[in-house]
Amino acid sequence: MTPDALAKACAAKLWEPDTCSQWLGMQLEEVRPGYARISMKVRPEFLNGHGICHGGLMFTLADSTFAFACNSHNAPTVAAGCSIEFLKPVQGNDTLTAVGQEQILSGRHGIYDIRVSNSAGEVVAMFRGKSAQLKGQIIDNP
Amino acid sequence: MTPDALAKACAAKLWEPDTCSQWLGMQLEEVRPGYARISMKVRPEFLNGHGICHGGLMFTLADSTFAFACNSHNAPTVAAGCSIEFLKPVQGNDTLTAVGQEQILSGRHGIYDIRVSNSAGEVVAMFRGKSAQLKGQIIDNP
Amino acid sequence: MTPDALAKACAAKLWEPDTCSQWLGMQLEEVRPGYARISMKVRPEFLNGHGICHGGLMFTLADSTFAFACNSHNAPTVAAGCSIEFLKPVQGNDTLTAVGQEQILSGRHGIYDIRVSNSAGEVVAMFRGKSAQLKGQIIDNP
Amino acid sequence: MTPDALAKACAAKLWEPDTCSQWLGMQLEEVRPGYARISMKVRPEFLNGHGICHGGLMFTLADSTFAFACNSHNAPTVAAGCSIEFLKPVQGNDTLTAVGQEQILSGRHGIYDIRVSNSAGEVVAMFRGKSAQLKGQIIDNP
Repeated sequence: MTPDALAKACAAKLWEPDTCSQWLGMQLEEVRPGYARISMKVRPEFLNGHGICHGGLMFTLADSTFAFACNSHNAPTVAAGCSIEFLKPVQGNDTLTAVGQEQILSGRHGIYDIRVSNSAGEVVAMFRGKSAQLKGQIIDNP
Repeated sequence: MTPDALAKACAAKLWEPDTCSQWLGMQLEEVRPGYARISMKVRPEFLNGHGICHGGLMFTLADSTFAFACNSHNAPTVAAGCSIEFLKPVQGNDTLTAVGQEQILSGRHGIYDIRVSNSAGEVVAMFRGKSAQLKGQIIDNP
Repeated sequence: MTPDALAKACAAKLWEPDTCSQWLGMQLEEVRPGYARISMKVRPEFLNGHGICHGGLMFTLADSTFAFACNSHNAPTVAAGCSIEFLKPVQGNDTLTAVGQEQILSGRHGIYDIRVSNSAGEVVAMFRGKSAQLKGQIIDNP
Repeated sequence: MTPDALAKACAAKLWEPDTCSQWLGMQLEEVRPGYARISMKVRPEFLNGHGICHGGLMFTLADSTFAFACNSHNAPTVAAGCSIEFLKPVQGNDTLTAVGQEQILSGRHGIYDIRVSNSAGEVVAMFRGKSAQLKGQIIDNP
């Protein structure tokens, strides 16, 4: 299996039981080794007390994108820690797109940067995730 | 109005339109000046592809707790950035409790630490939020 | 050996070869299990292009304090990652004091918060460090 | 003045009084709009109690690089907060190079990523800085 086919197979295997990402209406648009892109529409139930998209839901989109990017090498991988900077408020009904890119993979630890943009193409949040690989494989004997 | 009564009035005003926190089943348990405590049950739809609670939903609980803690002084306040460390996986059906405490308020900027614990009392995530106060008041002429 | 005596013995063993902290004029004022306090005078050579103390030197003071706090349990421990928020500029000739406190120790990983204050008692920076314990002991068979 | 010439003029104006960066032996190798590259040799006095380069000095190199990258647009700019991940220990006598690149500039706030590499070309630390522009100009009427 090529690295690209393996990344897609890992994503398919993780997406199917990923109730949360599906429930929130995320669309897994593209996965490659160390890369993922996911979009999500801001539903009325995502709004907070200021009438804008809850930062937690923007984080959740970025975190899912991080997960698919860092699980693309067939090693089961979890988030150790994440940080996010909020740059612009997001209105209801907008569609957000998160693009995640591996910055470095050093032993079992990796760093991934995810940019979240609105439908006007403006970056609304920047996310950085630190990953830790567990033992085992996502796809047995690929 | 005492600072404590003002904190409760701000929380009531922000909670009512906070569709997202209510939709996720959060319970606003306590608010005081610079402090908030919120609990949330981990529903089946909160689980991710590894079969554990999506980190984004843990973040969302912490982020709401941060919001109620930093909006307790009657100045409308938003998150500038946040970081979270994930310490233990969380299973479905567990109930999480987030406790947020102001660490410092320096001019318009504050730092808030939020601990998320499971129902066994174990800390499962540690969150730090940086806040920025906007102009205006939450409660007019309190 | 009591936990307190062990913390002091670990600190003594790490301080002696810590050329950098000594070279910068740090004073190790107190160490207890999970706790350290270090002070440092802001020398003229610590100033940056804006004429205030270089943020890197404030970080270095906090990072040393973090190191002595997280190495207080006799397990050799290193920093995995750190974040710092700068709250107030620091002038030359001021004396900074950093107080570090363990927030949680979960398996091999810990989280430590360090506050850096100026001589007027104002908090000028807040630092959070994530630690990772290595194998072995600092003091053999204590 | 072109943006490139302005970036170089800002750097020259900030470098001259930057006692700290010079005292630590940093070499300002290149500055362009939103970009800076600085190198620094790891002197014996930079080593900590584990016999490796103190993380604070690696941070200081990255922080100076961040400062020159974010001050390249002629607006005086300071660090609001920074995070660093330490990936590999650094030995004495090695030469570190930090490369800083603007990721986004949104109003008065920017995000800059700095990679610190050793002389073998391995990334030893990843730094992210959040900047805040102050009023005024670095070079009057450029």
